[in-house]
Amino acid sequence: MTNWMELDQNIREWIAEAGKRIRASFQTELNIQTKSNRNDLVTNIDKATEEFFTDNIRNIYPDHEIVGEEGYGDELQEMKGITWVIDPIDGTMNFVHQQRNFAISIGVYENGVGILGYIYDVVHDELYFAKKGEGAYMNDIKLEELKPVDIEDSIVALNALWVTENKRIDPTILAPLVQTVRGVRSYGSAALEMAYVASGRLDAYLTMRLAPWDFAAGRILIEEVGGKVTNLKGEDLNPLEKSSVFVGNSQLHKTILEKYLYRFK
Amino acid sequence: MTNWMELDQNIREWIAEAGKRIRASFQTELNIQTKSNRNDLVTNIDKATEEFFTDNIRNIYPDHEIVGEEGYGDELQEMKGITWVIDPIDGTMNFVHQQRNFAISIGVYENGVGILGYIYDVVHDELYFAKKGEGAYMNDIKLEELKPVDIEDSIVALNALWVTENKRIDPTILAPLVQTVRGVRSYGSAALEMAYVASGRLDAYLTMRLAPWDFAAGRILIEEVGGKVTNLKGEDLNPLEKSSVFVGNSQLHKTILEKYLYRFK
Repeated sequence: MTNWMELDQNIREWIAEAGKRIRASFQTELNIQTKSNRNDLVTNIDKATEEFFTDNIRNIYPDHEIVGEEGYGDELQEMKGITWVIDPIDGTMNFVHQQRNFAISIGVYENGVGILGYIYDVVHDELYFAKKGEGAYMNDIKLEELKPVDIEDSIVALNALWVTENKRIDPTILAPLVQTVRGVRSYGSAALEMAYVASGRLDAYLTMRLAPWDFAAGRILIEEVGGKVTNLKGEDLNPLEKSSVFVGNSQLHKTILEKYLYRFK
Repeated sequence: MTNWMELDQNIREWIAEAGKRIRASFQTELNIQTKSNRNDLVTNIDKATEEFFTDNIRNIYPDHEIVGEEGYGDELQEMKGITWVIDPIDGTMNFVHQQRNFAISIGVYENGVGILGYIYDVVHDELYFAKKGEGAYMNDIKLEELKPVDIEDSIVALNALWVTENKRIDPTILAPLVQTVRGVRSYGSAALEMAYVASGRLDAYLTMRLAPWDFAAGRILIEEVGGKVTNLKGEDLNPLEKSSVFVGNSQLHKTILEKYLYRFK
């Protein structure tokens, strides 16, 4: 049987160590490579961080499986037993350009069910954490259940790209939402944006294309505080597939789905 | 003659003290009032902070004039002598909803020319500072001259609202820009967004409507690192008038003006 408490202690140690290394790397020049498209930067730090986690996991938990952005993990068709879903640096573009607004994101799943979620804002030393059924935290502060909010009073994260012509969504679907909410934000890190929803700093977050490692931890956090996590059609996310993602407090999620997203096919 | 060094020391002390009070206020319930529109929240902290600055300034510099968001300052038709332009909390909506991503912004002008600029990220204890002709800093770190960047490699701050139907700009003007740049962000605090441009975390920032206290400090910072500060038509800002604002590194500013904003009247 899995010793979750020990596993949690190990993850926290590894995250702290990885964070320390990343902060130290800011002193050295970054060696930036370009992945398939220019918006998807990858750095040597990104790779080294994923390797650090996978080496540690394989060493202590040889029977666990790993899904990671940088390819040091396994190719999975289904989630059996324990699966770690890792984004060593979520928000690589921010990492490179800003040296802030990025996070380490780790979700641990058991037979496809999210058990532990960690999102670590490295620069601000803020660890968002949730264990299924046992609550969510930012560092030592317990996160409250998300409260209902009127759409006119809500702050929603949404990239401007999705209200211009693009290949994923008709921009006229989301434009009225942008015009109705109190404020729109965009931080450029899905993990942090989901952590902000979990901690009530944002009321919802919508985006058109995330990979499993982008949302693996965030969904556990948000569900643990009573929030809703789906794709833009309102369907459950497959933890191994790329997808649109729509998260928020449950009542606002329902409103946005019914009033705006019904046109999204 | 103005003793700028003493004045700088005073501002820094007042900013540190105001920041301490604001952080302490997070323990107490915020008393939120609604200003003319729902996007423009104002809190008792906002007012108390402006009053704290104006009281201190009037006490030590009775002949200086003050322009402030919350109305504790003077009604000015022109800038003569020394004028303080103060936004006690820039990003009030973030302050209320997030308790982060807001800043104290103070610009000090002499006969209409910006001399000292301060943007203080209260939560992260980061003070962005510039003195005209003597450089710009984030805390103790000197900010470098902004380097040219290709538009395809740039990160631009722009609220999604400006690429949907709105009363200030034809959304088709900025949509192609959103589709061309590497990334779009929106943080919801003009002062911080300008501080990010000054420190190279963002390459440009565009918005349709700012008041003098929103941009008073930021323009001094950005100009001090060689960046360009205008309205969306490329014209100089009047330091006492509301305006659209477009800032960025000089070469990118020129490109965006020529390739995208030429249609803006």
